[in-house]
Amino acid sequence: MTAAETEVKALLDGWSGATRSKDIDRLMSHYAQDAVYYDLVAPLRFNGADAIRRNFLRWFDTWQSAIGVELRELNILVSGDVAAAFTLHRTSGTLKDGREVDYWVRATVCAQRSDRGWLIKHEHISVPADLKSGRVIIDAVP
Amino acid sequence: MTAAETEVKALLDGWSGATRSKDIDRLMSHYAQDAVYYDLVAPLRFNGADAIRRNFLRWFDTWQSAIGVELRELNILVSGDVAAAFTLHRTSGTLKDGREVDYWVRATVCAQRSDRGWLIKHEHISVPADLKSGRVIIDAVP
Repeated sequence: MTAAETEVKALLDGWSGATRSKDIDRLMSHYAQDAVYYDLVAPLRFNGADAIRRNFLRWFDTWQSAIGVELRELNILVSGDVAAAFTLHRTSGTLKDGREVDYWVRATVCAQRSDRGWLIKHEHISVPADLKSGRVIIDAVP
Repeated sequence: MTAAETEVKALLDGWSGATRSKDIDRLMSHYAQDAVYYDLVAPLRFNGADAIRRNFLRWFDTWQSAIGVELRELNILVSGDVAAAFTLHRTSGTLKDGREVDYWVRATVCAQRSDRGWLIKHEHISVPADLKSGRVIIDAVP
């Protein structure tokens, strides 16, 4: 791993660690103020750190347990001040309504190096869909 | 726009132009052999240019008309040999079953400069979902 790849890996470790413990301030410290987020849920995009923070707080509030995070098939591209990472991301745990959940999403993270170090400028999280039935495919496994 | 941004914009113009005209060879000329594709449909990911080509051919075959493509809120990050672009992407036209469709997806494209110029190493296409109902949200508009 190059030095830059190690830095981007540290960003991703901070990102998944803060998600796991639902530490909103630590998590948001990894996002640029003008980040654009395409989430699993509507709307099409969340523009800016304030909107992204509110959406994370809404999501964190649905969990009773810590949020289980596992990454698989992680790839990192980095050159100069831009990095792109993509990975399969397993999310698991217990929701406040008592349901045990365990599902895989696809995650793409695009980051830029700034005076504050590497910051996420864009994130894209999704699951595939069955367009014929109009149903989300939440049980796809790698 | 810097010279590198202009090159990446040209890649995206080639990508959307080839999609519009369903020109599979021109479209695939923009992908790296080891590209990883997260599509609107299952499975979680398509690994490699051969799997991506088969998936595009399947999709192209559902269209009677040309595929209408409109990009909005396009952002490009580029440094050295890595670029990331993200955009809202409107897809419209007439399917072979006679249905007129017109929907917005979120598109993220990560590219790397090689001996063959800029090539797409990763692409992520999705629509948001309503996880309570398990339904895809295919009618979201910017």
